[in-house]
Amino acid sequence: MKVLVINSGSSSIKYRLFDAKDYSMLAMGLLERIGEPGSRLSHHWRGPTGEFTETVYDRRIQNHREGLMLVDSAIAESGILGSCSELFGVGHRVVHGGETFYEPTVIDAAVVDAIRKLAPLAPLHNPANLMGIEASLEHMPGVPQVAVFDTAFHHKMPPHAFHYALPSDMYAKYHVRRYGFHGTSHEYVAGKVAVHIGKPLEELNIITLHLGNGASASAIRGGRSIDTSMGMTPLEGLVMGTRCGDLDPAVSFYLGRSTGKSGEELESMLNHESGLRGICGLNDMREIQRLADRGETRARLAFDMFCYRVKKYIGAYYAVLGRVDVVVFTGGIGENSPDVRKDSCKGLEGLGIIVDDKRNNSHGDGICEIQKEEGSVRLLVVQTNEELAIARQTMQKIRSLNTG
Amino acid sequence: MKVLVINSGSSSIKYRLFDAKDYSMLAMGLLERIGEPGSRLSHHWRGPTGEFTETVYDRRIQNHREGLMLVDSAIAESGILGSCSELFGVGHRVVHGGETFYEPTVIDAAVVDAIRKLAPLAPLHNPANLMGIEASLEHMPGVPQVAVFDTAFHHKMPPHAFHYALPSDMYAKYHVRRYGFHGTSHEYVAGKVAVHIGKPLEELNIITLHLGNGASASAIRGGRSIDTSMGMTPLEGLVMGTRCGDLDPAVSFYLGRSTGKSGEELESMLNHESGLRGICGLNDMREIQRLADRGETRARLAFDMFCYRVKKYIGAYYAVLGRVDVVVFTGGIGENSPDVRKDSCKGLEGLGIIVDDKRNNSHGDGICEIQKEEGSVRLLVVQTNEELAIARQTMQKIRSLNTG
Repeated sequence: MKVLVINSGSSSIKYRLFDAKDYSMLAMGLLERIGEPGSRLSHHWRGPTGEFTETVYDRRIQNHREGLMLVDSAIAESGILGSCSELFGVGHRVVHGGETFYEPTVIDAAVVDAIRKLAPLAPLHNPANLMGIEASLEHMPGVPQVAVFDTAFHHKMPPHAFHYALPSDMYAKYHVRRYGFHGTSHEYVAGKVAVHIGKPLEELNIITLHLGNGASASAIRGGRSIDTSMGMTPLEGLVMGTRCGDLDPAVSFYLGRSTGKSGEELESMLNHESGLRGICGLNDMREIQRLADRGETRARLAFDMFCYRVKKYIGAYYAVLGRVDVVVFTGGIGENSPDVRKDSCKGLEGLGIIVDDKRNNSHGDGICEIQKEEGSVRLLVVQTNEELAIARQTMQKIRSLNTG
Repeated sequence: MKVLVINSGSSSIKYRLFDAKDYSMLAMGLLERIGEPGSRLSHHWRGPTGEFTETVYDRRIQNHREGLMLVDSAIAESGILGSCSELFGVGHRVVHGGETFYEPTVIDAAVVDAIRKLAPLAPLHNPANLMGIEASLEHMPGVPQVAVFDTAFHHKMPPHAFHYALPSDMYAKYHVRRYGFHGTSHEYVAGKVAVHIGKPLEELNIITLHLGNGASASAIRGGRSIDTSMGMTPLEGLVMGTRCGDLDPAVSFYLGRSTGKSGEELESMLNHESGLRGICGLNDMREIQRLADRGETRARLAFDMFCYRVKKYIGAYYAVLGRVDVVVFTGGIGENSPDVRKDSCKGLEGLGIIVDDKRNNSHGDGICEIQKEEGSVRLLVVQTNEELAIARQTMQKIRSLNTG
């Protein structure tokens, strides 16, 4: 039994194929530039010895349907499956579930419609996710397909955490509230933490920091997200690769007047030209650290602002949780930047948060503890794996249907 | 020697007259509805016995100049001064000093021009403040006049705290950054705390919570504001009477598309119809508490959101400061609502923040300590007095000129 996980962008398809027995990965790949010149699939597949081989397919791909046909033949050529129609299931990452979807959901025409209706809340993401879903339903009509939502894990936030202080109509009529994202990742690493520590998740208070090109923090009490830094959209909260995160809501209006930019241009600027890139011109944290260490002031500012914002969220969620057992660093930056981890925790000794430099610097794969012995809060670096989590949730959902 | 403090709104003039010897208040008043039907001055003046008497003047006032003439004659009629031209100085509250002004500044034509240039950053406030300043310069040309800026105290925030994660041009060209407001109040209560505790301000880490119809928090290290919750404008941060405070920056764009409202209408909604009033229809905290206690769910939500946001800022600034000696509650709500103080601190025992119910409920005038003995952080309720602080700064500035 095999399960395919698809993360569809507007001009890309990312996928991973898992063996549903042990969730080992059989293949993974990225198809880029769909509908543009230079479409290219990089397909990695596991051979009989367990090693991965890359095969590259350079050919013009017009749309997501053609893209999935190519992915299907790449998987078939790797000898893993005869074709994708033999799959046990397909799991699709969907960014925004609104208040409609808060658990893995088998996709049919009504679900596709409902996801489409949520597009105004997530114009950058849901339509792109749907392109993959529709192509996949067409291409593999006999395979059960499940949508797993990035917002789902945050569904149980209490009202005082998810509401904004706006006229109540804005929620009632227009569904403006905090939804939160990266839910699959926050949930996954929290589960890993509980296993690692050997305590039930229900007894743990955890702050999870998913720090990648997108970045968010979550306060998790007893396995339940009670607050998170992303909001109605993924634009709020931490400083990100190209997103501004927290910002005085008056700034957009002022910049509209001062720069003459349209709302559309400003929204695009806040999403694509801000964050680390806006501050210093770069959004690769390794490169930023290199320049900062060389004394480049803008890179230093970008690094400092990134860590400072993380620190403020640690403090805020410490207050929200009252007691914190674990702080988790995950995501590309969280897993790979000892300097970010160290700087984000600097001066938090009073909260029992003390990084051990040696442990922090020698961290490898898997779960690592990086706190000093005298710190009361465990600081863990955990590799996230959203695709694996989606694969599991997809399998569980399909199995529950079969037995239900 | 007497000093007059003026806080000018677009259709109002608030003032207080102090004796510069001991800063006792000699008179105070509010002129409302300037340029509208039904202008009315309520003037309170201290008689020889020390008691205050109110005199009300109902007469049509066309503009701020006429308004000041009326204030002048009201003061003269009270027998405090022959006329305002005998004043030692006048202090004007100015909301936004931008990066131009960060200390009390003697007002001349160039300063008026510079304050006017800052109007785009504070369109709701600076032009209104200027109406009072210009009328006052015209009416009392021989009296030294000093502008005291609400942003000044936050001027020394470090770059990682005052910058937003926007393209660097937005700061360089358009001056978009966190400025912070309520500075006169945060500074004043921090000074009071140091005297009360008997320690130099330089040795104290303080979180000040100015909770009124406008509300802001500040992290103060050694007497210096190192972060604050209001931003480029007073719209960011805590939940306020009618302002939304923190909000996903994508919400305005989404609401523009969904509601068809213009940018101007949305900005006005976020400033005037949001916050407590937006959530539950009311912005009077006493009324909200009364309804919440009766089980009205929207009032309960408004109360909970208000306190929850305060709590998150306490946590964030705890992390920023590393060690906190004192948390100060001030402003109309901070000074008068034991329930808000209690709820904002609920669950913060782990930070050494523990409210003593009896002390909290029996608080009177002046400075009160409301922490439990076992709490490591002192929790103080301090009456703020921005007008007094402006009067002092005005006198100091004028005296420094005379001796300099």
